[in-house]
Order: sequence, then structure tokens, then C-alpha cells
Amino acid sequence: MVEIRLLEIAQFLGCTVEGNKEALIRGVAPLDQAQVDDLSFYTNSKYATRAKLSKAAALVVGLHDRERFAGRSLLISDNPYRDFARVVAKWFNCAFLPKAGVHPTAIIGENVQIAEGCSVGAYCVIERGAEIRAHTTLFPFCYIGSKVTLGEHCLLYPQVTLLDRVIIGNRVILHSGVVIGGDGFGFAPDPNRGHIDKVPQVGWVEIADDVEIQCNTTIDRGALGATKIGRGTKIDNLVQVGHNVEIGEHSIIVSQAGISGSTKIGNWVTLAGQVGLVGHIQVGNGAIVTAQSGVAKDVPPKSVVTGSPAQPMIENRRALAGMSRLSELRKKVRDLEYRLRELEQGKIDSG
Amino acid sequence: MVEIRLLEIAQFLGCTVEGNKEALIRGVAPLDQAQVDDLSFYTNSKYATRAKLSKAAALVVGLHDRERFAGRSLLISDNPYRDFARVVAKWFNCAFLPKAGVHPTAIIGENVQIAEGCSVGAYCVIERGAEIRAHTTLFPFCYIGSKVTLGEHCLLYPQVTLLDRVIIGNRVILHSGVVIGGDGFGFAPDPNRGHIDKVPQVGWVEIADDVEIQCNTTIDRGALGATKIGRGTKIDNLVQVGHNVEIGEHSIIVSQAGISGSTKIGNWVTLAGQVGLVGHIQVGNGAIVTAQSGVAKDVPPKSVVTGSPAQPMIENRRALAGMSRLSELRKKVRDLEYRLRELEQGKIDSG
Amino acid sequence: MVEIRLLEIAQFLGCTVEGNKEALIRGVAPLDQAQVDDLSFYTNSKYATRAKLSKAAALVVGLHDRERFAGRSLLISDNPYRDFARVVAKWFNCAFLPKAGVHPTAIIGENVQIAEGCSVGAYCVIERGAEIRAHTTLFPFCYIGSKVTLGEHCLLYPQVTLLDRVIIGNRVILHSGVVIGGDGFGFAPDPNRGHIDKVPQVGWVEIADDVEIQCNTTIDRGALGATKIGRGTKIDNLVQVGHNVEIGEHSIIVSQAGISGSTKIGNWVTLAGQVGLVGHIQVGNGAIVTAQSGVAKDVPPKSVVTGSPAQPMIENRRALAGMSRLSELRKKVRDLEYRLRELEQGKIDSG
Repeated sequence: MVEIRLLEIAQFLGCTVEGNKEALIRGVAPLDQAQVDDLSFYTNSKYATRAKLSKAAALVVGLHDRERFAGRSLLISDNPYRDFARVVAKWFNCAFLPKAGVHPTAIIGENVQIAEGCSVGAYCVIERGAEIRAHTTLFPFCYIGSKVTLGEHCLLYPQVTLLDRVIIGNRVILHSGVVIGGDGFGFAPDPNRGHIDKVPQVGWVEIADDVEIQCNTTIDRGALGATKIGRGTKIDNLVQVGHNVEIGEHSIIVSQAGISGSTKIGNWVTLAGQVGLVGHIQVGNGAIVTAQSGVAKDVPPKSVVTGSPAQPMIENRRALAGMSRLSELRKKVRDLEYRLRELEQGKIDSG
Repeated sequence: MVEIRLLEIAQFLGCTVEGNKEALIRGVAPLDQAQVDDLSFYTNSKYATRAKLSKAAALVVGLHDRERFAGRSLLISDNPYRDFARVVAKWFNCAFLPKAGVHPTAIIGENVQIAEGCSVGAYCVIERGAEIRAHTTLFPFCYIGSKVTLGEHCLLYPQVTLLDRVIIGNRVILHSGVVIGGDGFGFAPDPNRGHIDKVPQVGWVEIADDVEIQCNTTIDRGALGATKIGRGTKIDNLVQVGHNVEIGEHSIIVSQAGISGSTKIGNWVTLAGQVGLVGHIQVGNGAIVTAQSGVAKDVPPKSVVTGSPAQPMIENRRALAGMSRLSELRKKVRDLEYRLRELEQGKIDSG
Repeated sequence: MVEIRLLEIAQFLGCTVEGNKEALIRGVAPLDQAQVDDLSFYTNSKYATRAKLSKAAALVVGLHDRERFAGRSLLISDNPYRDFARVVAKWFNCAFLPKAGVHPTAIIGENVQIAEGCSVGAYCVIERGAEIRAHTTLFPFCYIGSKVTLGEHCLLYPQVTLLDRVIIGNRVILHSGVVIGGDGFGFAPDPNRGHIDKVPQVGWVEIADDVEIQCNTTIDRGALGATKIGRGTKIDNLVQVGHNVEIGEHSIIVSQAGISGSTKIGNWVTLAGQVGLVGHIQVGNGAIVTAQSGVAKDVPPKSVVTGSPAQPMIENRRALAGMSRLSELRKKVRDLEYRLRELEQGKIDSG
């Protein structure tokens, strides 16, 4: 069992520590569930009461929350959630991993290269010409298509499918059910012939370093050329990325968002949950698209857009406010009508 | 071939029977497709004509529909759909199941416990320390992670993935492509360092008894602590359940709904299709969220909310009605303008 | 390496050719990426500049664009995208396919029929009584349930699941993660007993010829009777098709759309991305539902509907226009109020 002094944790994080520096930390937990030897963290004033009642041995908090917790053992951080995460990652992250080496049931095609330190789980299939670089881990039932390149220190959970010629960088994490390199949705309907022709999807997919893609998400190959996901971008569950989409670096794509073909997303962009984007548009660096928005035209850098069809946040708020004041306007018009009738009748009377 | 008298079915259901009690029932079918020895059912007056024309030997109907079908053979039920379902389940449900026993190609890790009466299909992988209780069935290609607990009489269709430490109750049904225990979407962006840190997801998932989860749905593990699905809850295809979500008992979550992290859903709640919920909110017992709604704040018990952003049904209807009467309001204002001009000119004329 | 004269391509397509008929074409690429021996295509005036700058040896263009590219080598087509696709399909489509024959690790049940020319990949499982017709290809990890019928010249990518009794036509393409024949979402809640009964889903699924279904899409079996997908229909990634839905011929269902139970979709219908349809409605032939729309009632043939709730395009535009002119209306009312007050005071003054 892991056991570390609070001071040692502070030194690792580069934080100052308050209270009992010698407190022994044996676990991590959220505020409510923390026991007397657990570390927890506090970032949101909504949870102030929970924090007060928490049994945790110590809390990671921001400098401005220091006085709120006077008397408790604290680690003072300029990013408490991140620093808490660093502690979990270093001492308390115990996920199960397959053994190193190639499992005897894995089927390895001709001219496949598997570098040192790799782990290839039971019932994996790696087709001919694929290359897997050092220290990459495949859980069972992964399918690695022909001529795929998979970088170093990657982690593929069970049931990941990489179709042929997909290119994956280093330290990429792919979760169960992810499919990369399926055909794009390219069809040329020809009603005269009573037929829809398939447009062959002969491109590929490039995933840069440090990308993480979560469960059951689909990234289609380019029709021609590549679909690209930039360095450090994180994609949640059940997201759809169409053919020839390009996503920049360090962007966040939340669950069930859908990005249509050939759209380009910049760096540090956030697409919230269930957002939909049409094809062939651009979303500028640092832009935010709020949940369930439907985006049909370019989004300028650093802007925040919302609604379906999406518009700048401020215009959307104005429109919603206008609608909510409709009954007030209706009342005003009714009053005007009444007063006008009075006047008209007065005129007639006095006429 | 199954063959049962109508009377015997009535006795099983505790229903009264009208017409030919000795009619032999040899199958079940919807109204249009029913043959002369099939049982069918009727619940919706939209299908009254189909019911009249149906060849079915007998119908399960409500008491208030008894006269409508005078002369036909009927089973009078206070819940015709449910009782029809009970008949199908008892006599006409013939789904294919794998043979009992562990298939020789299944790979079973150290210290795995598999109780009596289980069926483990071809090419399943069960990692070390997992426990599978009595009479549970795994179709081929299921992945059972390390230290998973899987209850009694569960049914896992092909390609189900349970990551490590997931806890599943009794009589749980998991359909193909379901992933339980993937990492939550937890990241701490740090633009100054030009990096997004992963927040380790070290919690687990608890699924209570009698839950059913349908194809390609994803349930993420808690960041810390558990994601919980309560007893009897049913979740449709392609649903996303974020980390540390808690869903109560007997709730219904329809296809493509998405629930963000740490949100709490009560008992007997209905989330209709494509609903999205932000994180850290509460949906009270018995509440209904209509299709495609976007919920950004707490939903009171037994309320019905709709729209994006979601609001109580009655306010939403009022708002929609107000908008649809906008052109009428505009006409009224135009009329006021005209009359006012007349008055003003009269005043000037007479002034 | 493939190398064809432009004239030969023109003859294959039945196009007229302009410029250098002897140009040697060695590849295909989009406008920007094309090299001096590539064929490219042009359809959208938005890309006129790219087309001018493109290094491509020749372009496939429409007749009306002929003059725009005077001096270049051209293939004149009445459907440039389709004809370009035909060229790619004929000469430049090089996707990796598994070898013919049944892989020794495939597990084949009793009474399974596999016709000549089939390819069954590693670790496929085909349950008893299934039939696979000539020249069909299964990539690894496909699960073919009991009594499934799979037509000729089908292509199933890795990790496709067909549950028991599913019927698939000829030339059908199913992408990774597709699940066909999972149970429909049929439950009869019974709050008095504190229980939700499962309604057994004992129907099946019928997929006609030339259908393509993309990654991680789910098609549920009928509760009773069939869920049907008509000839030539194309379904994108992550789509949900509920039990007893019927989709006609040559329809296009875009990513993340959801169709609730028993709804009927006609021929040549387009459902754009993230559309949701309630159950038990009809969408007429040739109708278009725009992205993210929520459809709660029948859609007439050839109509275009939009919004949530969906309404005819023209009404939706009028409603949006009305809302955007609200502040103008408000100003008008303010002006009327002012003038009326003036009049009233004048009246009082002169009274």
C-alpha cells in the first residue's frame, strides 16, 4: 500500500503546504467519500459545505481559498484540479495492463514490425506491413490494418479498430470501440439511373502525438488525402469525425459531437456535447461552441457561439430576452389600443 | 411447435377471456401480419381499422375497448401491451443462446471464478481476479476486465467490453458494442504550458440488478468513486453516460441521450431521445425530459421539461404560441399606427 | 503503378476530352494536393482559385465550367464528382482485403453454408444454420448469428455483429462496429408493481441489396416482424434505427440521426446529421429533413422540413425573420406610446 507524507507531495508539486506536513496520505477521494488518510481537492464554491464536512487528511486548494479552510492541512496550488490529478497519476493510478510481449493467440501478418517493450494482447490481429513502435500496448481484440503506423507508448483498449494505412503518433490513447479509418460518407446520387454511386474513399487518417480518443468514437478516412487530428487534442465518446476533417492542436471535442466532411477546426477550440457542424467550414483558434449548437458557417477565432443555427452568444441572449419580453409587448399594445379607442371616441363625441 | 388454448393463456395472465376460449394459439404477430392462429394486441385507437381487419385468432385489449370488438375472441387486460409481452416471453421467445460451459478458445486469467451454469462463448477473454456468478451467459468476443464482478443470470451479447473493476448486478442484459468502465473525459488544460493534462480516472462503475443497456452505449468509470446505474433502469442504444453520473431506479434513457459528468438522475425518470444534460445537475424522481431537449439546470420531481435550453412544458408552449402570434401583433401595431396618424392629422386640421 | 491516357479515361466515362488527350494519368487527388500527373475534379465555384492554381494534369468539370478553364486539359462531364469517383473506383482503389478462404481460427457452427469465393477472416464466429453466399468477405472478429442470411459480394469490416435471423441482401457493405439485430427498446413500465417488464423482441431485420451502413451504427430487430432497410440506402456512422422502422430505397441517413420505432421513411429521402424522428410517423418520398431537426409528425413527399419541432422550411424562415425584427416592432410601439401620450395631453390641455 502506498503511503506518502504530505510534505513529499508538496515538493513533487512545487506547492506550499499548510498544517500537518507529516500527515500520511494513503489514498485519494472526492470530498464526501474521503477518509482520514485521503487527499482531496476543492475548486468550486458550490461544494464549500462538503469541503467543511470532509474527513480528508488534506485538501489541494487555490490561494484565494486558503482562509476559508484555516486550521486544515492544505496544499496551496495555482491549479488544484490539475495538481490533484498529478498526485493520482504518480501514486494512485493502478489500472490493469496486459503483460509485455506478444500473446500466442495474436495473429501477426507478413512484414509486420513490432518494436521492443510492446505488449500485444490475446486475439489481436495485425495485418501485413503494419509497424508498431516501442512500448505500445494493445489490449485484446484490437485490429491493426495493413500498413498502419502506430507510434511509441500508445495504449489501445480492447476492441479498437484501425483500418489500413492509418497513421498514429506517440503517446496516443484509444479507448474501446473506437474505429479509425472507416470510409467517409461519400456518395453521388444519380436519380436518373435510379442509383447512388459510392465515391471511393481512398485517403487515410493522421493522428498526432498525445491525442486521446474515447469509447465508440468514429474517425473516417479522407476521400482523397487525410483526415487529421492535431497534437494533444482530446475527443470524448461517440463523436463523429467526417472525411477530410482537420482538427488542430489541444482542442476538446465533447461527447456525441459531429463534424461533417472537410471542416477545419483550429487550436484550443472547444466543441461541447452534441454539437453539429456542417461540412466545409472553419472554426477559428480558441473558439467555443456551446452544447447542442448547430454550426452552419465559419466561427471566428476566440468567439463563443450558441444555438441552432449557432450565433454569437450575445446575439443569442438578446434574441432569447426579446422573446421572453413578448407578453409584455403584447400587453403594451393592448393598452395602446384601449387608449386610442378612448381618444377616437372622445374625438367623435367632441366632433 | 407451440400450441396453447386461449383459456390457458387467460389463466396465466389472470385475464378474463371472451369468445372462443378453446381457440388454439400457435404464434404472436402485430395486427397486420397476424394469421388465423396468432394472438395480437390493440392499445392505440389510431390502429382501430387494422384491428378490425386483422386475421388474428384473438386480441389482448383493454376493458374500455371491449365493445369495439364485440364478436371477436378477446383477452381483457388492464395493460394489454405488457400482458402480450408476457405471453411472448413465456411461449414464443426463441432467441439463440450459446451452449453452457466454457468454450475451449476462451482465455481465462488467474484467480478467475466462474460459477455453475455459466456459458462463456468462443474467444472471450476474462482477466485475472474477475468473478462471474451462476447462470450468466457470455456470447463470443466479450472482454471481462480484471477484478470485474458479474452477477447471476446476466446476458452479454457479442463484443461487450467491461473494463477493470466494473461491478454488475444480477439479471443484467448488455447488448453488443456496449463499453462499461472506459475513462471519463477529465482533462485539465494548461494553455501556459501549451498542454492538456489527463486527470486519471481511477474510479469504477456499479450497475444494479435488472438493468438493461443496449447496443454501442458507453458508461464511463468515475474519476474517483463510482458511476452508478440503479436497479431496473433501461438504457437504449448509443447513449453516453459520463463519469460519476448516478441514475436511480426504473428510469428510461432513450437512444443517443447524453448525460455529462456528476449529474444525478432520480427514479422513474424518462430522458427521451437525443436529450443532453450538462454536468453537476439533478433530475428529480418521475421527471420527463422530452426529445432533443438540452438541460442546463436542475429539473424538479414529476415535472416535464422541453426545449434547448429546457424549460417547463407549459412555458415552452406559451413561448411557441407567442411566436406564432407575432404576425398578428405586427398587424395590430400597423393598424394602431394608421389610426394614430388619422387622429394626429385630425388634430392638426382642427387645431 | 497504374498509368492511363486521358483519352482512355474519357472513353470509359463517355465524356468529351479537351486539351492533351495523350496526357498520362498516374493518380487522383484533390485540387490542392494534385501533382502534375494526377487527375482532379471541380464542382464548386468556392474553389475556383484552387482549381486555377492546381498542378493537376487534367480536371473533370461540368460543361458550364468549360470556358473558365480554357487552355487546361479537361474531361467534360454532366456529373463531375460521380465521374471522378468512377475513375477512382476503376483504377485507383487499392483497399486491403483478406485472402479468400476460411481462416483456420474462424469457428463455424453446424449446418453453416459458405458459398464459393468467400473470405472469412481470422477469429470470425459463424453460428449454426447461417448461410453466406458467394464472394462475400468477412474481415476478422465478425460475429454472424444463428440462421443469418448474408448475400453475395457483401463486405463486412472487422468487428461487425449480426445477431440471429438477420437477412442481408447482395453487395451490402457493413463497416466496423455495426450491430444489426440487437433488441428493440421495448418496455412496459408497471409502477404499481415497481417494475419495468421487458417486451420480448422476437422479430428480425431485413437489409436489401446495395445498402451501405457505416461505423458503429445500430439497427434494432423488430419487436414482432421486421425492421427493413430498402435497396441502395446509405447510412452513415453512429445512426440509430429503432425496431420495426422501415426505410425505403436510395435514401441517405447522415451521421448521428436517430429514427424511433415503427417510423416509415420513403424512397430518395435525406435525413441530415443529428436529426431525430419520433416513432410511428411517415416521411414521404423525396423529403429532406435538415440537420438537427426534430420531427414529431408526418413529413409530406418532396417537402423540406427544418427546426425542432420541425416545420416546412418556408414557415421556419418566416418565424426566424419575425423574431429578428422584434426589436424593430418594439421601437415602433415605443414611438406609438409617445405620440399617443402627446395626443392625450393635447386633448387634456385643450379640454
